[in-house]
Amino acid sequence: MPVPITPLCTVDCIIDLVDHPLHRADRPVLVLIERRYPPHGWALPGGFVDVGEPVSHAAIREALEETSLHIELTEQFFTYSSPSRDPRKHTVSTVFLATAKGQPSAADDAGRVAVFTEDNLPTLAFDHGQIVADFFAYRRSGQRPGPHR
Amino acid sequence: MPVPITPLCTVDCIIDLVDHPLHRADRPVLVLIERRYPPHGWALPGGFVDVGEPVSHAAIREALEETSLHIELTEQFFTYSSPSRDPRKHTVSTVFLATAKGQPSAADDAGRVAVFTEDNLPTLAFDHGQIVADFFAYRRSGQRPGPHR
Repeated sequence: MPVPITPLCTVDCIIDLVDHPLHRADRPVLVLIERRYPPHGWALPGGFVDVGEPVSHAAIREALEETSLHIELTEQFFTYSSPSRDPRKHTVSTVFLATAKGQPSAADDAGRVAVFTEDNLPTLAFDHGQIVADFFAYRRSGQRPGPHR
Repeated sequence: MPVPITPLCTVDCIIDLVDHPLHRADRPVLVLIERRYPPHGWALPGGFVDVGEPVSHAAIREALEETSLHIELTEQFFTYSSPSRDPRKHTVSTVFLATAKGQPSAADDAGRVAVFTEDNLPTLAFDHGQIVADFFAYRRSGQRPGPHR
């Protein structure tokens, strides 16, 4: 089989820091990173999937590399694939929901790490603003995005 | 950015042929293809995602190419990424649930196309047996596979 050219596989993590003082059952505390490289801005922790690695493993690895947190995956949420979601290359990102405890600390591609609640979210890079909006809608309605998102 | 090497992006479709005589609300009629190329055997319709194409579009395109059916996507189900799921290359497949009407007809990579119900499923190539089992479990329980599938 000639090797086909496809979009690149990535993962992103919506991490709820469940032992943070601001955390409540109805108020997740999300861990975001400020990107060290373009496109700059705040973003969900995540990155490229390695060949030979399941997406779940990539999510845990990338979260650890960027935030120093050992996350626990709770759900595979949705896979985002709009060709315009990353200005550099077409990437297809499988997004996981996860929880973590402890003190996040920026590393790797992350310049800074900080926590946010729904009422003080920053502007997010890529389509991460949409992803986070979909997450909060899912928490309220139980509905994931439709198949054409 | 140097281009990273990642697994290849693919899609697969669980198509319920809703106007088939065997179809009932509690008995989906699944459209499967017999593969023309190795690995041989029955499989879900699907294939590689093109750069610049959302996964939803790839699912509709591949279903049409292989079964001649114009499918309607109902849900994005789950993304499967075990490195052993395809013996040729590491592929990450986003699986959609879909409905269709009419007469399927094999084309492209499909040698034959046929319909099956849960009680007469053939052995399936790749991890498609697991995917179909997950689909029937989801219909019964409302639960998708866990994040480590």
